[in-house]
Amino acid sequence: MKKPAVVLLSGGLDSATVLAIARSEGFACHALSFDYGQRHKAELLAAERIARAEGACEHKCIHLGLDAIGGSALTDSRIDVPEQPRPDEIPVTYVPARNTVFLALALGWAEVLNAKDLFIGVNAVDYSGYPDCRPAFIEAFQALANLATKAGVEGARFQIHTPLISMSKSQIIQTGMALGVDYARTVSCYSADSEGRGCTVCDACRLRRQGFEASGFKDPTRYQPNS
Amino acid sequence: MKKPAVVLLSGGLDSATVLAIARSEGFACHALSFDYGQRHKAELLAAERIARAEGACEHKCIHLGLDAIGGSALTDSRIDVPEQPRPDEIPVTYVPARNTVFLALALGWAEVLNAKDLFIGVNAVDYSGYPDCRPAFIEAFQALANLATKAGVEGARFQIHTPLISMSKSQIIQTGMALGVDYARTVSCYSADSEGRGCTVCDACRLRRQGFEASGFKDPTRYQPNS
Repeated sequence: MKKPAVVLLSGGLDSATVLAIARSEGFACHALSFDYGQRHKAELLAAERIARAEGACEHKCIHLGLDAIGGSALTDSRIDVPEQPRPDEIPVTYVPARNTVFLALALGWAEVLNAKDLFIGVNAVDYSGYPDCRPAFIEAFQALANLATKAGVEGARFQIHTPLISMSKSQIIQTGMALGVDYARTVSCYSADSEGRGCTVCDACRLRRQGFEASGFKDPTRYQPNS
Repeated sequence: MKKPAVVLLSGGLDSATVLAIARSEGFACHALSFDYGQRHKAELLAAERIARAEGACEHKCIHLGLDAIGGSALTDSRIDVPEQPRPDEIPVTYVPARNTVFLALALGWAEVLNAKDLFIGVNAVDYSGYPDCRPAFIEAFQALANLATKAGVEGARFQIHTPLISMSKSQIIQTGMALGVDYARTVSCYSADSEGRGCTVCDACRLRRQGFEASGFKDPTRYQPNS
């Protein structure tokens, strides 16, 4: 019987790769997405497609009213998504405490499933300056998980797997291609249209394009006409 | 200008007391509740009443689909709320990773408000065996908060205030009474009816009744007829 794991799945390139890695390591993957007031739902539709294509044994989407607190270009329609983030500054696409919230909910589901393994596609290289993508954050969350839970009290040791944390975008793409990930299914763009096509100019599109260029693989990403 | 704080407010006795304490300490209190698939909404209506009565400068309620993951008598209608929990066992009313999730969302809002202070009514004495009510958990979350956030990266130090953590239920009640809290507004019962009246027999009702008896104050709690 396969060990269960909760895999955070956004519908983007990174988390699709993480799901393929978790499956290749022999885990029964319970994929978890969030409907948190993102500007577009194309990402969630992509997550559904990827969960099916990558053989997740289950896919759940938790509704999360992050729009109530705002504070990010990704959840507050009054804040514009910038084309070029300023260097050395945390961008407005940062969603306050997002990975803390996502990992907390993944941990809750892991408890219900009796799973001890959580997978998240954080990346400390091309990480866009988000504080909750750093190794120190992940280590602190792992320590918290063991204290926070019934399972932890009973002796379980949670492991937060971050297989992408030290990879460049092109290494992520190379890893996923080797595992057969179809990146045409994934949506990375912060301003994707209703069909999930990228804008080409946002930070996420830019990092993705550069990653494909450096990887040596043809970029299968669908972009918006006239972009 | 008052310092802002985010105060977790469930609508129960403990969090109403915490709000009164935070206000008495001079904070501008931003009260935060969650609609997380609780069995009854009386608790949320109580939170609204208490936020107004206790002078919170703002009250938000975040929708949170915890029912998608289940695993607790409080969010899964297929699990019965027990009348007497077994000693030395974490009860089925434990919601997986609940305080981790609630504090994570409070942290996100704190970032948006530029607040560094969070208040939560956890209690390690009458704590019903919940792991995420222990001081070690709170310390671990505080460490996480500083690593998880843009504000933390920029040097802010978050403080998780747990003014009730070492108090008995009767001490909590005595503290709240001294601050003028009207406990008739609060709902503690796991099985409250639509008017917020308690069942008398669940763990929460039992602890609350014992607390009032020990406090020397008359219990203003409204109970269901024939209970």
